[in-house]
Amino acid sequence: MTQATIAEYMQQVGKNARRASTVLAAAEAATKNKALNVIADLLEEKGDYLKTQNALDLEAGAAKGLDAALLDRLALTDERIASMAEGLRQIAGLADPVGEISGMSYRPSGIQVGHMRVPLGVIGIIYESRPNVTADAAALCLKSGNATILRGGSEAIHSNKAIAECIQQGLQASGLPADCVQVIETTDRAAVGELLKLKDSVDVIIPRGGKGLIERVSADSLIPVIKHLDGICHVFIDEQADEAKALAIAVNSKTHRYGTCNTMETLLVAAPIAATILPKLEALYAEHDLELRGCDRTRDILPNCVVATDEDWDTEYLAPILSIKVVDDMDAAIVHINAHSSQHTDTIVTENFTKARRFLREVDSASVMINASTRFADGFEYGLGAEIGISTDKLHARGPVGLEGLTSVKYIVFGDGHIRT
Amino acid sequence: MTQATIAEYMQQVGKNARRASTVLAAAEAATKNKALNVIADLLEEKGDYLKTQNALDLEAGAAKGLDAALLDRLALTDERIASMAEGLRQIAGLADPVGEISGMSYRPSGIQVGHMRVPLGVIGIIYESRPNVTADAAALCLKSGNATILRGGSEAIHSNKAIAECIQQGLQASGLPADCVQVIETTDRAAVGELLKLKDSVDVIIPRGGKGLIERVSADSLIPVIKHLDGICHVFIDEQADEAKALAIAVNSKTHRYGTCNTMETLLVAAPIAATILPKLEALYAEHDLELRGCDRTRDILPNCVVATDEDWDTEYLAPILSIKVVDDMDAAIVHINAHSSQHTDTIVTENFTKARRFLREVDSASVMINASTRFADGFEYGLGAEIGISTDKLHARGPVGLEGLTSVKYIVFGDGHIRT
Repeated sequence: MTQATIAEYMQQVGKNARRASTVLAAAEAATKNKALNVIADLLEEKGDYLKTQNALDLEAGAAKGLDAALLDRLALTDERIASMAEGLRQIAGLADPVGEISGMSYRPSGIQVGHMRVPLGVIGIIYESRPNVTADAAALCLKSGNATILRGGSEAIHSNKAIAECIQQGLQASGLPADCVQVIETTDRAAVGELLKLKDSVDVIIPRGGKGLIERVSADSLIPVIKHLDGICHVFIDEQADEAKALAIAVNSKTHRYGTCNTMETLLVAAPIAATILPKLEALYAEHDLELRGCDRTRDILPNCVVATDEDWDTEYLAPILSIKVVDDMDAAIVHINAHSSQHTDTIVTENFTKARRFLREVDSASVMINASTRFADGFEYGLGAEIGISTDKLHARGPVGLEGLTSVKYIVFGDGHIRT
Repeated sequence: MTQATIAEYMQQVGKNARRASTVLAAAEAATKNKALNVIADLLEEKGDYLKTQNALDLEAGAAKGLDAALLDRLALTDERIASMAEGLRQIAGLADPVGEISGMSYRPSGIQVGHMRVPLGVIGIIYESRPNVTADAAALCLKSGNATILRGGSEAIHSNKAIAECIQQGLQASGLPADCVQVIETTDRAAVGELLKLKDSVDVIIPRGGKGLIERVSADSLIPVIKHLDGICHVFIDEQADEAKALAIAVNSKTHRYGTCNTMETLLVAAPIAATILPKLEALYAEHDLELRGCDRTRDILPNCVVATDEDWDTEYLAPILSIKVVDDMDAAIVHINAHSSQHTDTIVTENFTKARRFLREVDSASVMINASTRFADGFEYGLGAEIGISTDKLHARGPVGLEGLTSVKYIVFGDGHIRT
């Protein structure tokens, strides 16, 4: 396609989505749930077709020299298809947030005012290779009453189109417009640029992928973006921490999984207990072959520790590496966190009520925890049922974003002929 | 100042604000309320000084040839100063939203999860001539725990600086950093451009003024903007409307005030009752010297009505002009509203429960009303205590924006050494 044809094509996609969104906004929960369940069934029934289409992507990927880890992320197996379908059925089981009325109260004028929860409208999702995102993201948007435009990675184009066929067939079988979920058919990069310009037909853009993708999308978009940037998470072990809890949390936050955004990257330890607790932690981390990088005070206690540079305090390792800093007290810990945290998730371990209360208030992150592992910062663990990402923005949605984060509210007013005097 | 000096100056303003914001975020309600009350007292005590400084602006404005209406908006009188002070005292009396914890519930893992309301951080406000905005906006931001950078119109620079002096003196007298509220000292336009680039030190930009200002700020800003664009509001009189209520609401929504964004600009009337109700409305509107512009079906009933062009349906008159369209039924009304409304405020007049319920759900505007005047769309009328504007955005804050709209929430998690398994 030429640039002009792509622009025209994308504008048409936008218009189709806007039209479908008004039908979807008014759809009953039962209709949306039926669609989700039918789509889940179709994905399983058409498993062989999905795997055949996925094989085309895997072949092309291997020919292009994608590494084994990427090819693995790209592969659709029976197990992964079943898990996609199961995800859709779970979303069907969640309460419908749309149309929920809250807070209706009478005002002195006699009018009654409150809020109604409403869909955002049209959501554009730009993501990288895993094809299961196609089904997950479409399902969350569908349940929250939003039309979706999906732009997956070019290496997954056949898989994504095949999943989209199942979704559109399921939508139509349930009486909803097929355009409620559209997958962009071209792999041309220009299509992303055009999508980011559609401010009349798209209400919000959600990029899912690496930091590079998210920064590029945020810089170019004329449409508001719900961002999920990096996770530089901290655990601060206070002088008055319970040692057993501190050890468990410091180990779990780092070693439960290395590649996730809610993994701890920097451990802060209060000076008065550093000499006692750091050697115990070193022994525990050694079981996980962790590389430790420490400040000077840490290295006085753990001489085998690598020297941490300034850069370490601002690095998301996503790897078995941990930076450790000894700080004077909680005040110093809060200063360090507010300067270096990516405002994702930070934890204090302490038995002191007053310090816990201050940490909670003064640390400016999307999730602030007391005596719990950073790994809990997750939509499922928080009870959202599912999540489309973890926002590090402060406006609109902050932290794990579930169905509610994909909606807005409007004011509603009931009167009986009331006028303003 | 040269461009380079202005850039440097604005970066310093941003840094000062960020530093002050962390102190303010942790400030107790009593401290913030004390500051608001002290500032209110200072504004009244220093009334003569404010009027002297304001006279400089009025002189310069008259010399520049500002029209009488603009000069009137610019003028500070004893009455207006008293009303500014009263506004601050009212804001001091509102509940502090910051730190409010809600929804703490236990999850199957044993952790307890909920939300804490927090300030946004640093808010930049760009506004046009009325100097009272300086005090109002600073007070709302202060109470919600945000540091503020204020950029008023150049024609009000002396007045704004004088008000800022009172504010900063009041802040210091209450133990808060003066930099919690900064007024940009230069009237150079380049300062606005620099402000809109400070994405590391400013969290949100709120423009207050005409459509031109808001569009310019939105286009140039690298920082998220809470927008208040135009108000093209509708009243739809359904076939099953109570006639007395319909007449009262249609007259009040248009004639209570012409220049406000929640004023009705287009009246939609259901065809079956048009011939009965339109002549009665014409007579009532005649008492207000209103110019009526109608579609063909309206003009069949009211031959004296001016012809409405396509442009009329998309025009915010802010004047004694009303466009009128006869529509077949509520479906046609909703289609017209969703195509032409600015998604500000729209009302249905009906006694029919099912239609009221559908209108409420299907009209996609910040305020949707049943049997009430559009003029109620206002922070005070809704019980917010005060408002910084009426957002026509869908993300973050929608409709009248009060203290809560100037805050965000973070997740908070309580554990007892909980780890993820």
